[in-house]
Amino acid sequence: MRDEARRRELLEELDRGLPAGRIITDPAVVSGYAHDEAEWAPYGTPSAVVRPRTAEEARQIVRTCLRFRAPIVPRGAGTGLSGGANAVEDSVIVSTEAMTAIKEIDQRERLAVVEPGVVNDHLRAACAEHGLWYPPDPASAPWSTIGGNVATNAGGLCCVKYGVTRDYVLGLQFVTGTGELVRVGRRTAKGVAGYDLAGMMVGSEGTLGVITEVTVRLRPARQPEHTVAGYFDSIVDAGRAVASVAEAGLEPSALELIDRHCLEAVDAWKHMGLSTEANVVLLGRTDSAGPAGELEADAVLACFEKAGATFAVRSTDQQEADALFDARRLAYPALERLGPVLTEDVCVPKGAVPDMLARIEETALRHDTLIANIAHAGDGNLHPLLITQPGDDAAKKRAQAAFDDIIAAALELGGTVTGEHGVGLLKRNGLATEAGPAVLALNRAVKDALDPHGIFNPGKVIADGEGM
Amino acid sequence: MRDEARRRELLEELDRGLPAGRIITDPAVVSGYAHDEAEWAPYGTPSAVVRPRTAEEARQIVRTCLRFRAPIVPRGAGTGLSGGANAVEDSVIVSTEAMTAIKEIDQRERLAVVEPGVVNDHLRAACAEHGLWYPPDPASAPWSTIGGNVATNAGGLCCVKYGVTRDYVLGLQFVTGTGELVRVGRRTAKGVAGYDLAGMMVGSEGTLGVITEVTVRLRPARQPEHTVAGYFDSIVDAGRAVASVAEAGLEPSALELIDRHCLEAVDAWKHMGLSTEANVVLLGRTDSAGPAGELEADAVLACFEKAGATFAVRSTDQQEADALFDARRLAYPALERLGPVLTEDVCVPKGAVPDMLARIEETALRHDTLIANIAHAGDGNLHPLLITQPGDDAAKKRAQAAFDDIIAAALELGGTVTGEHGVGLLKRNGLATEAGPAVLALNRAVKDALDPHGIFNPGKVIADGEGM
Repeated sequence: MRDEARRRELLEELDRGLPAGRIITDPAVVSGYAHDEAEWAPYGTPSAVVRPRTAEEARQIVRTCLRFRAPIVPRGAGTGLSGGANAVEDSVIVSTEAMTAIKEIDQRERLAVVEPGVVNDHLRAACAEHGLWYPPDPASAPWSTIGGNVATNAGGLCCVKYGVTRDYVLGLQFVTGTGELVRVGRRTAKGVAGYDLAGMMVGSEGTLGVITEVTVRLRPARQPEHTVAGYFDSIVDAGRAVASVAEAGLEPSALELIDRHCLEAVDAWKHMGLSTEANVVLLGRTDSAGPAGELEADAVLACFEKAGATFAVRSTDQQEADALFDARRLAYPALERLGPVLTEDVCVPKGAVPDMLARIEETALRHDTLIANIAHAGDGNLHPLLITQPGDDAAKKRAQAAFDDIIAAALELGGTVTGEHGVGLLKRNGLATEAGPAVLALNRAVKDALDPHGIFNPGKVIADGEGM
Repeated sequence: MRDEARRRELLEELDRGLPAGRIITDPAVVSGYAHDEAEWAPYGTPSAVVRPRTAEEARQIVRTCLRFRAPIVPRGAGTGLSGGANAVEDSVIVSTEAMTAIKEIDQRERLAVVEPGVVNDHLRAACAEHGLWYPPDPASAPWSTIGGNVATNAGGLCCVKYGVTRDYVLGLQFVTGTGELVRVGRRTAKGVAGYDLAGMMVGSEGTLGVITEVTVRLRPARQPEHTVAGYFDSIVDAGRAVASVAEAGLEPSALELIDRHCLEAVDAWKHMGLSTEANVVLLGRTDSAGPAGELEADAVLACFEKAGATFAVRSTDQQEADALFDARRLAYPALERLGPVLTEDVCVPKGAVPDMLARIEETALRHDTLIANIAHAGDGNLHPLLITQPGDDAAKKRAQAAFDDIIAAALELGGTVTGEHGVGLLKRNGLATEAGPAVLALNRAVKDALDPHGIFNPGKVIADGEGM
């Protein structure tokens, strides 16, 4: 494919098989599709971006690329944080962003059938009109697409009670590694006919096919939430509060942690005054129906207080509650104002949260790196955010060492290298360590079985030549 | 393996690798392991039954069988209903029934680590002592094992609200097709490191490995349930009530249907007098906390009444409520008194339940076959029970035709050939029809990738030579 004539031939053949306007080759536009939002992950220059509008067009594209053995990088909105959508050199980026139809919302069966380019928040809004709810709520929900969410098995704030994307995918249509358009999974509540191929596609990060349609399970519209805020002096106290909520048998619908660095960054930007009141803020929510939800909120409050909160309150004011969660959502962009942010995504057992947070603090000191923390604390899913100044190569090197230490610590505490962002490029070494050679070989076997020509997103999740 | 000397050699080598007493060759005992509870499914004569007590022993067995290319049939308690555990000729049955340790119940992380031979009800009882709950509740729960439940992705009564076995499997240890002992999945609440191999193993019916340990997710102990009973004249009215519950956005914790044939059989046995009062009984349960659960029960009741129940009541008496659910549980053994029962397991969209029930009635008439119905109606998962007299070959032929028609009808209505019992031997044709050649080929590719020597449960789920 390095041959320019061959590239031209590929583009011509792609063009012949598709309606006009599907292929983008303008380098200025193409460069916008060359990577996702992962800091530091390398990327190449794609041959072209193709934006199919139908499943049949997607199949055409895959078949043509198969003939040319041109690598395909499937792409949603490009909001990923692991480099999973980064361009492989001379690849064809297949962006599903133009496939935006919500084909069906069935109130009785509680399911929706959507094209992969539907934005998460759009689906949620459409469901709400039918009294239904699509729970997975990654922070990227205003921009990220269902196709990308499925490819990464996206999580979010409410997973702590309601699970992740995989828990909501009933069925999929996708183009296989041999260029077939297939449907896997089902529309029924249950089904065990054959291997769970739909589940296998979820979280496969574009390495097994191009998703062209998704059938998701929905829930009835949720009950109004009650919010509990707790201010803590130390991150260890906050961690103890998280463990205490789990031990009490409570099921909060969100349990988020924001540390001092984040609070300060938000304050510097939005002047909310949070960092003068707390070193660490925990935000809990409950949503059981009626008085049960209020009792649950009171019980969460009691856990916060027992763990040593300096201040804890059940917010009765919805506006105030939303403001607190806004602070959570603003933490990431607020930190980005300080410099490029490398987002970690380890997940540890709930009981290990205080220990993991302490180790992250030690790591920051040891490597002289600014590490802020936001966390889906109730899941044990931490997002240490490593901030370096652009151009400061020494700092970047220190941060890379800190990144590796955090991964090692998470594994040591019985955790995983990635809770919800995926392996992509950034966590390949981490996956290899976590899985070990035998399990890596099983991953490789699945990849080779379902993508026999190695055309989909080569080098992602498992490095070329690994797991053999 | 048909060679007796070769068989003896295999047994000697198995024996050398294992402590005494693990291998059973007494034909009288071995024959008890030759098949599960599926009527009509063929089975061969195994070479031996081996009952490992540790994962390491299981690995030894697999490695020895690999060297001899002797087929392995993994087996739990043998309560399956599709022939999945039926012996392949000259196979080694690897029964995990002696691996019964509950290794860990972690209250804070809400997980349990168990050996595969732990009986479902034993796990549930052990969890209850820690204020925890393992939801999957197949009717076989008093006998079936977690390993078997995982292998079939077992469902049950409370799936309608709480999901199936797959929703509770966090991680697995198993022996692979190359004789490696591996761990897949995790102990953390979330994790996306690599393909979902743990999920792939769930429901794989012993065709991808021998499961040696399971880590399951638990929930807090559930709230007391409220029971609603509805009596209906026609199965179509009852079906309408089911659809109405779904449309109302309710989430019952059980929604079961019992038809006239079942009620009569239970009455003939236990003299409960149900069949004089109703043609069809619907049993609903709700378990939201506090007053919300009662409101939900009232709403289910209203749905029953609106759909034309001749009598509907919220049971305030727990004993009475339990008696009604006992009738549900007794239906199957009560019918077995009438003759061997072939259990169907189709699952259709909830809205198609009335139509599917009507088609089953027509099928029974058309093929002059007694077909009773119990159903996890809230899931659209129907269990038509086909009853024939032993030795009546003409009746068996008619019943086989009825069985095939039911499968065809379920597919026509957008359903699946198996909701929770698995493909085994009985649903191989059904799977091939439902999946189509391209998806069957994907199933085959996964099988060949993870079991490269074709040693695990050959001919189950996918027939030999199919999907190539």
